[in-house]
Amino acid sequence: MAGTIGADGYRRFWDEERETLAPEARRRVILERIRHQLDYAYHRIPFYRELYDRRGFRPEQVRRLEDFTEKVPVVTKAMLRESQEAHPPFGNYLGVDFAEVMRIQGTSGTTGQPTLFAITRDDWEHVSQAQAMQVWAAGMRPHDIVQMSFPLSLFVGGWGLLGAAETIGAKVLPVGGGESDRQLLLMKRVGASVICATPSFTLHLLERARALGEDPAASSLRLGFFGGEPGGGVPAVKRRLEQGWGLKAIDFGNVAEVHPCTNMECEHRTGMHTYLDIDYTEVVRADAPNEAVPMGSKGAVVYTQLWRRAQPMIRYFPGDETLMTDEPCACGRTYPRLPHGIIGRLDDLLVVRGVKIFPSAVEDVLRGVPGTGTEFRIHLERPAELDEISVEVEAGEPGNPALQAEVEAALRAAFGIRVPARLVPEQTFDRTAFKARRVIDRRPALSGAAA
Amino acid sequence: MAGTIGADGYRRFWDEERETLAPEARRRVILERIRHQLDYAYHRIPFYRELYDRRGFRPEQVRRLEDFTEKVPVVTKAMLRESQEAHPPFGNYLGVDFAEVMRIQGTSGTTGQPTLFAITRDDWEHVSQAQAMQVWAAGMRPHDIVQMSFPLSLFVGGWGLLGAAETIGAKVLPVGGGESDRQLLLMKRVGASVICATPSFTLHLLERARALGEDPAASSLRLGFFGGEPGGGVPAVKRRLEQGWGLKAIDFGNVAEVHPCTNMECEHRTGMHTYLDIDYTEVVRADAPNEAVPMGSKGAVVYTQLWRRAQPMIRYFPGDETLMTDEPCACGRTYPRLPHGIIGRLDDLLVVRGVKIFPSAVEDVLRGVPGTGTEFRIHLERPAELDEISVEVEAGEPGNPALQAEVEAALRAAFGIRVPARLVPEQTFDRTAFKARRVIDRRPALSGAAA
Repeated sequence: MAGTIGADGYRRFWDEERETLAPEARRRVILERIRHQLDYAYHRIPFYRELYDRRGFRPEQVRRLEDFTEKVPVVTKAMLRESQEAHPPFGNYLGVDFAEVMRIQGTSGTTGQPTLFAITRDDWEHVSQAQAMQVWAAGMRPHDIVQMSFPLSLFVGGWGLLGAAETIGAKVLPVGGGESDRQLLLMKRVGASVICATPSFTLHLLERARALGEDPAASSLRLGFFGGEPGGGVPAVKRRLEQGWGLKAIDFGNVAEVHPCTNMECEHRTGMHTYLDIDYTEVVRADAPNEAVPMGSKGAVVYTQLWRRAQPMIRYFPGDETLMTDEPCACGRTYPRLPHGIIGRLDDLLVVRGVKIFPSAVEDVLRGVPGTGTEFRIHLERPAELDEISVEVEAGEPGNPALQAEVEAALRAAFGIRVPARLVPEQTFDRTAFKARRVIDRRPALSGAAA
Repeated sequence: MAGTIGADGYRRFWDEERETLAPEARRRVILERIRHQLDYAYHRIPFYRELYDRRGFRPEQVRRLEDFTEKVPVVTKAMLRESQEAHPPFGNYLGVDFAEVMRIQGTSGTTGQPTLFAITRDDWEHVSQAQAMQVWAAGMRPHDIVQMSFPLSLFVGGWGLLGAAETIGAKVLPVGGGESDRQLLLMKRVGASVICATPSFTLHLLERARALGEDPAASSLRLGFFGGEPGGGVPAVKRRLEQGWGLKAIDFGNVAEVHPCTNMECEHRTGMHTYLDIDYTEVVRADAPNEAVPMGSKGAVVYTQLWRRAQPMIRYFPGDETLMTDEPCACGRTYPRLPHGIIGRLDDLLVVRGVKIFPSAVEDVLRGVPGTGTEFRIHLERPAELDEISVEVEAGEPGNPALQAEVEAALRAAFGIRVPARLVPEQTFDRTAFKARRVIDRRPALSGAAA
């Protein structure tokens, strides 16, 4: 089966039949895998047996996909952490003999100690195959030289892209994070065509390349895989990355417990595709995770690994807000999309005088104003009874009152409240080699917040 | 073929027939591979054809292994660098179509820009198999949890150990370099039994663990793979690592252009074995690399990759001093050994008032004196006509004159000249997450030295 050939002379799909399957047929495949995973988890994994018994759920109750959403309790990060504390190091949800484990990875631990997860060899091969399908859809090809600027460490995102690149036969230059000047030098020496990094670090590389007198828009890069932060899916960030480097910016979502690249955009960049037959993906009410929200409505995302054996996640609820659509995509794949990406992590949501603000929305506003620089900070304070939010943003002309007024007007238009903005000189704030931390919250903790 | 079983219940050898082959039979295998590589290089790789034609050498001239040593010109780091400058990025010694390349790695570039090297998929699989044999001899087993504390980046040493661990079925926890406290925390959480890192970084972890009130000698570590620096083969460093952590310290030599772990000790730790049928290894006169030195005499090491296709090194001369012995090893392997490891990189050799001093020899002396701390520096100055060498070494009791006298006596005994020593408080010097730089050379450059 030769399959459809694309404009670049390569086949258009990695697995055409699978990727273009009619949604109804795919739902049958998914239901079968879900029933397999539920049965496996219930009979082999104490964590799931206890959870399901406590909630009075039995795997046999799932006869349709709707049953799955309505009857199966979700798993939260807190439950995993608690299980790992009670049963170190992997919790009581390891479904295989430890002898089968090949790799131990972890979450980045931004909200506490990292949660660890074990992976078997066949799990890992499955990850590489699945992610090969995703990066192929995003346009990575065997002739590409892939500069890996994610750290290859506990963070699993870079490993997923590495396995994918190796599977499709692309050439990987593993640089790891940091060392901007060395990154730029190596990029030029080998003529890297693809970069994999956080959006923050890639924006810093952009700034550094310009400072060195180079023309990054004319660089050899043609494609970037951006994850670890929401930036790749934030319109103004995406625009800066694409125009600055002259590349197509591919957003991918990394939920470490689920998959190195859980969702990923295709080359049309109309929002991440959810590869439902790798990880079944639902959007539910954040306060009622057994209720689906209608297609096109905002809600909390829930993932189920359909193939993982070592530490399978079944209805994992990471606390991310999104919105799913099944409008067709020009790429021809029948996987639905998240047209606004991951809108934000519910844990990160700032509520200021009743207004809900995701830090990524502030970033979108700031980067959308021409003349703003590379870094910014969001400050939260409570001088009296009320919370106050303000921003500091770097600018080439920090003394320009018109620019300041424009930033403040854009913030008011986006959030409906006044957000004071202060322009500061370029290089005021630290540059990160990985994920940026931009919210500085000086509000006193609420009483009882530590409980 | 079940093979011999060791005391730990596992087979003793990864490939018993190969590892215990009679030296004469092995020489026949090596000669055949050498003739294959010479023929391949001469007919496919311009770099070698030009070099050999210029020197009047033809592959057919190699009929015995002695011919190889006596007739084939060596390749130096400078020649590779020059070739990569003239033919970027890989030089004119890529033996395969670029489409076959899977990975691009590099030297660490401690003495200039990194030299890059391309690797094909089958090259890489061969590396993993070869290194599996080596780590098995060193005692790594499938039940081990391997904490990878080398950065997984351009530096290829960590990648070799990763591939080896995955091949034998051990479990890898990839932490990468740096972040001492996180390293210690993860080590404890998963009960890591093996660590892979530079000796310097592992000594710093030791110091940090003690500062946190832990008892590293009672840690879960039982084995360490130390490379990137000579330390693992320096007796006093090895002793500190072994006694401090309660582990067996395995020294391996990393010549990036040749193999991630070019030579490696077995669990008996009597000097690195040279796996001659992976990389044929010769010891020659440093000033006459077509003259072998007798077994047991010091000389410069020369490596030949017997299986590499992408960018094969044939008689590569890295400038490292060593000494080889074919005295039998208790492990039963018939591979010769380098009983003093890599004594030093000839580039690093300090010549002070006619006395030749490798920095690693200074390290051996300092770490051999009880009461000295974790870090030290070597200072070179030329206040008048003569060079002066002195050391600063950290100590728990920097004001102790008896300790100072003992350090100076040990230095005089080792080098025959007076080397003033100054004791400084612990934590005076920076800690490294990778390779340490301890020589501070303030001598004015010799006129003409830049030529």
